[in-house]
Amino acid sequence: MAERRAMNGRPALAVVGATGAVGAVMLQILSQHADVWGDIRLIASPRSEGRELFVRGEATKVIGLSEEALDGVDVALFLVPDEVSARWAPVATAKGAVVVDSSAAFRLDPDVPLVVPELNPHAVRSRPRGIVASPACTTLSMIVAVGALHAEFGVRELVVSSYQAVSAAGQDGVSALRDQLSLVAGTELGTHPGDVRRAVGDTTGPFPAPLALNVVPWSGVPEAGGWSSDELAIRDETRKILDLPGLRVTATCVHVPVITAHSLAVHARFEQEITVARAHEILATSPGVVLFDNPGAGDFPTPADVVGTDPTWVGRVRRSLDDPRALELFVCGDNLRKGAALNTAQIAEGIARELSRS
Amino acid sequence: MAERRAMNGRPALAVVGATGAVGAVMLQILSQHADVWGDIRLIASPRSEGRELFVRGEATKVIGLSEEALDGVDVALFLVPDEVSARWAPVATAKGAVVVDSSAAFRLDPDVPLVVPELNPHAVRSRPRGIVASPACTTLSMIVAVGALHAEFGVRELVVSSYQAVSAAGQDGVSALRDQLSLVAGTELGTHPGDVRRAVGDTTGPFPAPLALNVVPWSGVPEAGGWSSDELAIRDETRKILDLPGLRVTATCVHVPVITAHSLAVHARFEQEITVARAHEILATSPGVVLFDNPGAGDFPTPADVVGTDPTWVGRVRRSLDDPRALELFVCGDNLRKGAALNTAQIAEGIARELSRS
Repeated sequence: MAERRAMNGRPALAVVGATGAVGAVMLQILSQHADVWGDIRLIASPRSEGRELFVRGEATKVIGLSEEALDGVDVALFLVPDEVSARWAPVATAKGAVVVDSSAAFRLDPDVPLVVPELNPHAVRSRPRGIVASPACTTLSMIVAVGALHAEFGVRELVVSSYQAVSAAGQDGVSALRDQLSLVAGTELGTHPGDVRRAVGDTTGPFPAPLALNVVPWSGVPEAGGWSSDELAIRDETRKILDLPGLRVTATCVHVPVITAHSLAVHARFEQEITVARAHEILATSPGVVLFDNPGAGDFPTPADVVGTDPTWVGRVRRSLDDPRALELFVCGDNLRKGAALNTAQIAEGIARELSRS
Repeated sequence: MAERRAMNGRPALAVVGATGAVGAVMLQILSQHADVWGDIRLIASPRSEGRELFVRGEATKVIGLSEEALDGVDVALFLVPDEVSARWAPVATAKGAVVVDSSAAFRLDPDVPLVVPELNPHAVRSRPRGIVASPACTTLSMIVAVGALHAEFGVRELVVSSYQAVSAAGQDGVSALRDQLSLVAGTELGTHPGDVRRAVGDTTGPFPAPLALNVVPWSGVPEAGGWSSDELAIRDETRKILDLPGLRVTATCVHVPVITAHSLAVHARFEQEITVARAHEILATSPGVVLFDNPGAGDFPTPADVVGTDPTWVGRVRRSLDDPRALELFVCGDNLRKGAALNTAQIAEGIARELSRS
């Protein structure tokens, strides 16, 4: 590896899944952070082989995923479905690459660190399998803000309700909502039981119910006890990232008709008493967080306003009227940027610095 | 009053605010429950005077609101803004009518009962001011389900996040969302910061931000501590209805691009341990509640499926993994029916029975 890097002075990167929704955002980020990597190789499924994508201003041909495609790579970003990561990440590590995986395949593996660079950057150094995982977009949309408050007040319980955007389900999710909106716009739909469901017909795409003029309280696959996999993921991942195995976490995941940017209503109970003034100070000065909280002036984050931006936006900060240790927040973050591509890129850049020092 | 009723055997009703969004639903309900009332008088602002509306199959002329318009009325339903109720409800009571008010004007008045007939029907009998209040639509969208569980397990804390429909802001709210949807359908909007806000321009109507392709974490007017009036209303009204002045209640109110039917994610902690099986039994047999909870088969309530129906729909029932006394629910209810017109009509029908017996 050291020899390969010596050839151009910077580590070689592979982006596996370059043609997807998260891949597209990753190419933007790699172009903005253009001084980190040496060679950048774009990899996707074999049917995308030969397609040209732009990164750092250069047209770059996509390579089909294969064993050979992973030769000579220092760091490989996996932006692919769980089953593709599960199969191919070990191939990449066997060839000497460090893998940063954005799928769920390894997030809860005790030998794989789950990293949010603002909160636990040190965790990246201990990676016995050669794999580092990036959390789910829903966790990432709130964890930087919650982690900042935890550092001072000690979080003990979280109750979160999500307002999740359709792009978390990829281009299929975006297409489904856009198709449905074209069918309901200009109509009087939304006033009789099932009228939207009948009108949108089979355009529900990856969702179990219509999203136009609707919200859908389900995300993921069924788990025991009536929970969805995405709800349990928020609990498990938050505990792992904050290194609090006993943290009480309850989540309800709901999809809403928003293209990109997840929102969460967060009820956080801390070990110590908390004030809104001190919470504001912490949030206003924490890396990766923007405090936007003056509702009388219309200042609160909404997905349509924060989409396409990097930080976690926080507003509606209130202390519970019944418990001086509990705080309410409304947080918004771009599920494709910090929620996926950006966090993965940040982890990889930390590894690039480490490799450059070694 | 007894003499007036003797004339046709049934009490005389006035509907004040017959031409609004809730008024339209009220006329449907009065037509369905056609055997309760004698004369039905439709009252609205003077500019609607002479307009014809249908109730119980008959074209009925609207009368402008005035002192005389309230003569000879046994029960007056007020479906009007707070300030209109505050001024005119005392006029109606001075003329001998019992007022059932759906506005916020009297909800927290200690001399005005706040009634949900499934939960506290007895409260209606003690009405020193001659006024009975119906709760806010957001409270009503969850309280029947929560109250049913409270009766067995004893509720101690609620953390709720709402997904509120635009018709709670009346026809202006509905028009705003429909106008915005026409502007965003068929576009690629929703992917750049502020692109939706620029596209919808001044069509935001009664909301402080766009609702098409967005959610807006604000409902009501600013109160101390960063709270909105609607969030405090959920707390105050729930405490009053359940007669639990010390109940811990925290709410976050969020508008979503749905025409009608509010949804709430409810985290409820009880005094006693609870099981999903027993919660299912209670919810399946409680008046006014429909249990719809088999997510693996796609069975959970959504606003587009329950709009136009009377009950509170409950799904996604889960017990907290960290607290055997805490339960999660996702509830949906039509904010114009049970959330406004239906609850008001139910209260009034109880008073009609009482007057018929007296």
